[in-house]
Amino acid sequence: MSSSSTKDPSRSSIGSASSYLSNVSNFKIIESTLREGEQFANAFFTTEKKIEIAKALDEFGVEYLELTSPAASTQSYNDCKAIVGLGLKAKILTHVRCHMDDAKLAVQTGVDGLDVVIGTSSYLREFSHGKDMQYIIDTATEVINYVKSEGLEVRFSSEDSFRSDIVDLLNLYRAVDKLGVNRVGIADTVGCASPDQVAELVRTLRAIVSCDIECHFHNDTGCAIANAYAALQNGATHVDTSVLGIGERNGIPSLGGFIARMYAADKEYVKSKYNLHKLRDIENIVADAVGVSAGIHAKAILNNPSTYEILRPEDFGMTRYVAIGHRLTGWNAVKNRVEQLGLPLTDADCKQITNKIKNLADIRPLSLDDVDKLLRKYGQAKEDNSHHAILENIDTPDQITEW
Amino acid sequence: MSSSSTKDPSRSSIGSASSYLSNVSNFKIIESTLREGEQFANAFFTTEKKIEIAKALDEFGVEYLELTSPAASTQSYNDCKAIVGLGLKAKILTHVRCHMDDAKLAVQTGVDGLDVVIGTSSYLREFSHGKDMQYIIDTATEVINYVKSEGLEVRFSSEDSFRSDIVDLLNLYRAVDKLGVNRVGIADTVGCASPDQVAELVRTLRAIVSCDIECHFHNDTGCAIANAYAALQNGATHVDTSVLGIGERNGIPSLGGFIARMYAADKEYVKSKYNLHKLRDIENIVADAVGVSAGIHAKAILNNPSTYEILRPEDFGMTRYVAIGHRLTGWNAVKNRVEQLGLPLTDADCKQITNKIKNLADIRPLSLDDVDKLLRKYGQAKEDNSHHAILENIDTPDQITEW
Repeated sequence: MSSSSTKDPSRSSIGSASSYLSNVSNFKIIESTLREGEQFANAFFTTEKKIEIAKALDEFGVEYLELTSPAASTQSYNDCKAIVGLGLKAKILTHVRCHMDDAKLAVQTGVDGLDVVIGTSSYLREFSHGKDMQYIIDTATEVINYVKSEGLEVRFSSEDSFRSDIVDLLNLYRAVDKLGVNRVGIADTVGCASPDQVAELVRTLRAIVSCDIECHFHNDTGCAIANAYAALQNGATHVDTSVLGIGERNGIPSLGGFIARMYAADKEYVKSKYNLHKLRDIENIVADAVGVSAGIHAKAILNNPSTYEILRPEDFGMTRYVAIGHRLTGWNAVKNRVEQLGLPLTDADCKQITNKIKNLADIRPLSLDDVDKLLRKYGQAKEDNSHHAILENIDTPDQITEW
Repeated sequence: MSSSSTKDPSRSSIGSASSYLSNVSNFKIIESTLREGEQFANAFFTTEKKIEIAKALDEFGVEYLELTSPAASTQSYNDCKAIVGLGLKAKILTHVRCHMDDAKLAVQTGVDGLDVVIGTSSYLREFSHGKDMQYIIDTATEVINYVKSEGLEVRFSSEDSFRSDIVDLLNLYRAVDKLGVNRVGIADTVGCASPDQVAELVRTLRAIVSCDIECHFHNDTGCAIANAYAALQNGATHVDTSVLGIGERNGIPSLGGFIARMYAADKEYVKSKYNLHKLRDIENIVADAVGVSAGIHAKAILNNPSTYEILRPEDFGMTRYVAIGHRLTGWNAVKNRVEQLGLPLTDADCKQITNKIKNLADIRPLSLDDVDKLLRKYGQAKEDNSHHAILENIDTPDQITEW
């Protein structure tokens, strides 16, 4: 964390002490919209759409793009080659099973690295020790040595790491660390982990391996972003995200939500690394492609922050807009709008109008246009002192809309 | 936590030790869809809709319903009385500012209790100590004594607790605890807190006050559910939720997401307290009312869990459905469907069909109907050994759809 943290009003003042393990201000994003995201129920990306998403994410500044395994289908293989051919700044990874056939196919596509995953779950939970573990280590050794001999990055990950036998898990990771993998990965494949459990496992793993640590968290119990943050606080280095959080079931940390979390922790670091102004565009591209509503971060937080918000809309290329045509609106919001419109109204005027807005909004919410019309008409009417009559003569929102 | 935790496959096996402070298996929900939720940009609940939501939440089994202050508008006052008049099992609270006028109006509506909030943020951050603190305590004392004298429950909360001066905050809470409040509340009004910070503040507060502790977390940085869980682990007793998480900006913990988190922690406790089968209905009612897509927990997790899922759909009154018309589908998913349909196909058959499905799905995703048609046709054709020809003659998904 930066030393200026205590005076930054976007920061909590309580319990924000940092630890020597923390990578909150030193992490990399592995953006998996084109792998995990492609497994979302509604996702069907054409080659053109994949290229559009890849370019947008590269402009945003993510360090890695992870693509579906070329072994999944012919189209997946061709798309992998097409994205490698774009010459992006981001490194291109593909996510493959720990099989030599899959690894060879992946290397042929020209990617920068392989995210290798082994289905350890059943082994490590039910058949731990002995032959099964040796089989896993032998398979991993062959694949890892091959990928390294080709000069590519390699990550080795288990599945369902949080329900595995921890001794077997640490043995396995120590073995692959010695083989020289770039990263080991832990995956909460079922989304059952909580931040305290993540903190404990990552802290333990950090003491066992010397390589980087990548984390993949599913959101089944609503903790994916918090788990990613807990992992970074305890020594993880790489976090998997997808745009809007799309993925299997209810997905993984959303790129926007994760960025919001890290921005709250170290605004300057996040702003220096990523082009935050691109976030809304990226969310819209993916939302259109999968047919879901666009990012709540882009729309709900940033278009409509209250006076409380800790994210500066300007940092994300957006402007602040406070909804004021609501029956629960306060007169300060109305006063702000009066000032934006440059109308010469007093606080008493604003309070009187606010009461009218609240009464009208009990019938239906007013649009900003309606509110502006009302404020301007009231402002004009003040010149001949007929402004009280204006309010008295309005009984429904429709009367304003029809002006 | 229940003692059976270590053998439950829905649980993490790592770092799940419990502490004597934990209320993970002993908490109450304060459901705030009709207060926090009403402040969501798109929310406009009619009286009838509020009553429908209140009844549904009561059937689900939440312990409290929190309503908008009767001081907000005439309609809010009338709606409060209407919901009190329903005679629900859930206790009815209303959320009021720490003013005598608001408190008196609230008492008139017949609610069971008042959630009193004081705008401590600017005081506690900028003008701490001395007169301001005394003013807060004097005001709180008058309101709390009045509410208690009327025989109602009273909670006292600060705003923006995580950016307040912690000494002032603890002083204030100790003072109101001595006045005999039922609960103190901490509120991450801006959504800047992380689970480790929540754990620290709640644990500290738990040692200072003897009353219950309520928590209100905003989701601006994606940690609302994780923060609620961390709060319960460290001694909090009550958690604020809203259906679909609606509220100011991107809201607070969603009822469904919070329930998923707690179900993963203690399934039996959650099932014993809440009628989980009602969750989907409630989410649909609110989604329709505010015009957002329905709950990702009801739709994405529960309708479409993979073989990995930790939430049993049956517990939520739903059945499992695995999307298999996808280009990334595996042959095990196809085999499961074949078994569901009772078709006499071999593993080799299933693998052959899976390859065809993947090729077809590279063109467009297949519906479950399409897949079922294909499987049935293949099954029939096996009788006269024409099943290979069936697959060879299909080049596009449309050919199946048109059968």
